[in-house]
Amino acid sequence: MTDSNLLVHSRDARGVVTLCMNDAARFNALGDEMLAALRAALAAIAQDPSVRLVVLAAQGRAFCAGHNLKDMAAHPDRAWYQDLFNRCSQVMMAIQKLPVPVIARVQGMATAAGCQLVAQCDLAVASSEASFATSGIQYGLFCATPSVPLVRNMPIKQAMEMLLTGEFISAEQALAQGLVNRVAAPEQLDAELEKLVAAIVSKPAAAVRMGKALVYQQRELGIEAAYQVASQCMASNMMDSNAQEGAQAFAQKRKPVWS
Amino acid sequence: MTDSNLLVHSRDARGVVTLCMNDAARFNALGDEMLAALRAALAAIAQDPSVRLVVLAAQGRAFCAGHNLKDMAAHPDRAWYQDLFNRCSQVMMAIQKLPVPVIARVQGMATAAGCQLVAQCDLAVASSEASFATSGIQYGLFCATPSVPLVRNMPIKQAMEMLLTGEFISAEQALAQGLVNRVAAPEQLDAELEKLVAAIVSKPAAAVRMGKALVYQQRELGIEAAYQVASQCMASNMMDSNAQEGAQAFAQKRKPVWS
Amino acid sequence: MTDSNLLVHSRDARGVVTLCMNDAARFNALGDEMLAALRAALAAIAQDPSVRLVVLAAQGRAFCAGHNLKDMAAHPDRAWYQDLFNRCSQVMMAIQKLPVPVIARVQGMATAAGCQLVAQCDLAVASSEASFATSGIQYGLFCATPSVPLVRNMPIKQAMEMLLTGEFISAEQALAQGLVNRVAAPEQLDAELEKLVAAIVSKPAAAVRMGKALVYQQRELGIEAAYQVASQCMASNMMDSNAQEGAQAFAQKRKPVWS
Repeated sequence: MTDSNLLVHSRDARGVVTLCMNDAARFNALGDEMLAALRAALAAIAQDPSVRLVVLAAQGRAFCAGHNLKDMAAHPDRAWYQDLFNRCSQVMMAIQKLPVPVIARVQGMATAAGCQLVAQCDLAVASSEASFATSGIQYGLFCATPSVPLVRNMPIKQAMEMLLTGEFISAEQALAQGLVNRVAAPEQLDAELEKLVAAIVSKPAAAVRMGKALVYQQRELGIEAAYQVASQCMASNMMDSNAQEGAQAFAQKRKPVWS
Repeated sequence: MTDSNLLVHSRDARGVVTLCMNDAARFNALGDEMLAALRAALAAIAQDPSVRLVVLAAQGRAFCAGHNLKDMAAHPDRAWYQDLFNRCSQVMMAIQKLPVPVIARVQGMATAAGCQLVAQCDLAVASSEASFATSGIQYGLFCATPSVPLVRNMPIKQAMEMLLTGEFISAEQALAQGLVNRVAAPEQLDAELEKLVAAIVSKPAAAVRMGKALVYQQRELGIEAAYQVASQCMASNMMDSNAQEGAQAFAQKRKPVWS
Repeated sequence: MTDSNLLVHSRDARGVVTLCMNDAARFNALGDEMLAALRAALAAIAQDPSVRLVVLAAQGRAFCAGHNLKDMAAHPDRAWYQDLFNRCSQVMMAIQKLPVPVIARVQGMATAAGCQLVAQCDLAVASSEASFATSGIQYGLFCATPSVPLVRNMPIKQAMEMLLTGEFISAEQALAQGLVNRVAAPEQLDAELEKLVAAIVSKPAAAVRMGKALVYQQRELGIEAAYQVASQCMASNMMDSNAQEGAQAFAQKRKPVWS
């Protein structure tokens, strides 16, 4: 993979790709170029069977400040806005559709579509100094697209409060309300992130990929239909050589060895 | 607006309407007259573009004790009951469909359809002395209609416990489980409420109205459809003059001035 | 009812049936016989109008370790797996469809389909020494069917973390995330369970049965349709003689006497 100025790619020996938003001067705003860089990076990862997991990180005081209001002020055109929100929503859906888990590493402020990014990732680890707001309403723009993953992560009244007031919640509040998985002191953030990463990449890749897709698929179904697709998914999963090895290892009371 | 004996209307200069249930002797039970008063008040507010926000409050020891069991005992007639629950459900849906946010100010006990009122409001602020129960089952009547907003506010096992046992939870438990947004000492209740009110009415009215409706609409859709309606909503919102002003103010590093 | 070796039935004078998984040597794994015993027991209870409530309990260090991986290792056959997961999902749905409430009494580890059992029960009381994991991924098998009730009990990010990492959460974490209703010290577990049992069996049976079914039915509907079925349910419930007695007792300021 190549680096761009805006989105720095790195990759370790395990297949963990870190996409680091690198536009601290603009608080990593989701302007045209950042959106295009995210879209291209996610599309490439979706095609690469050697990637195991993605960390979405950021440089600077902000994790991501959402849309670039300066650009938006310069284009008072409904078609232009529709195109922008469509592209942004496609990036968000690309995170959910990505075959591998995506963990947000939230080191600072996550506002508007930046808060949406956190909500849309599969998992999130936050610095205790991070904060979260769906702040569009402060500028007269209700965070409609951020509300989509927000109400699917948090209780409705807490989500509605964030959306209607635009006010910040702390990392601890985000943890209590389900928006993030773990909170750590800033100097412990990478260690906490690594625990989650290590716990996931030590598992067989095919089962992790099948599992992530299944969870989002079954969640939108009635419970009977959900059980049907989940049962089929598990039967398929068991025919995988690693699941066979796992079951054999269990029966023989030894550690499994993944292929 | 006019006052009625049962439901006292007041309104401040900002367009904040307070509807105060004023039947402390009957614990603000939702008898025919109270339901009619709520229905009429909500219908009038829905047609009034100058209203910004509604506070649903109450006088006395109880916020609301739900249906009037004495009336119900006097009418052992299925059609009568069906009509009662239909009218009550219409009031509840009128809260969700109201174009402006509704905040419950819960100063005391909220039981059965009174607890449902809290769950159905967009936001809720509770006194630390308030308590909450879906207590119908104590009288042999499962709180079926209260269960509708309850399972859309709280985790299912906690909702099921309330519904099957009829027991009270405290304001702190209601906060932890998502049923209310804020808890304050009784003497701080109005100050805490005012923080939420002020945070909302300082935002442009059109964006708040569009946003509330969008959240409930998109929540019932699959995530892809939800992103489509939310993207359209945001593009429309951006064409509003206040959103243009907000973006310009951001670009010019000044405070927005709402029209 | 009869006892089997694997699943010990007991029943008290109130109609509370305890089904105790009694295969501590295999951590109460859901092998063919345990699944068949659960299925038969639930089917019998579903036909017995005198049963008021079911407690699902277990002997030994584990509440339930989920599927028997040793059996699964011995049958590397897709049709065999599909049949197994279908039968297991039918048992899970039988818990939800059971006309009476089911409370999990979780005294120890609940892993994979054992954790699913807890999530699928209507209520759950856990020992402070209990722990919970969707641990299939440790053996290369993503807990797809356990994910079905898990995402319907807990916030999505917390559920996804359990599913992708396979790691344990404590009873306190399970409580905070909605997976269980109550946590008690081991020696207080039965007393805590009895509080819930007593609170439910003291209510009229017909209202409890109608209520449980209604909650799961309305939860899968849009809110308007949910209110329609809930209103009809309440009108039917009110025509029940116990609900009439409850309303009369309320009107006459006395305790209701259930028939």
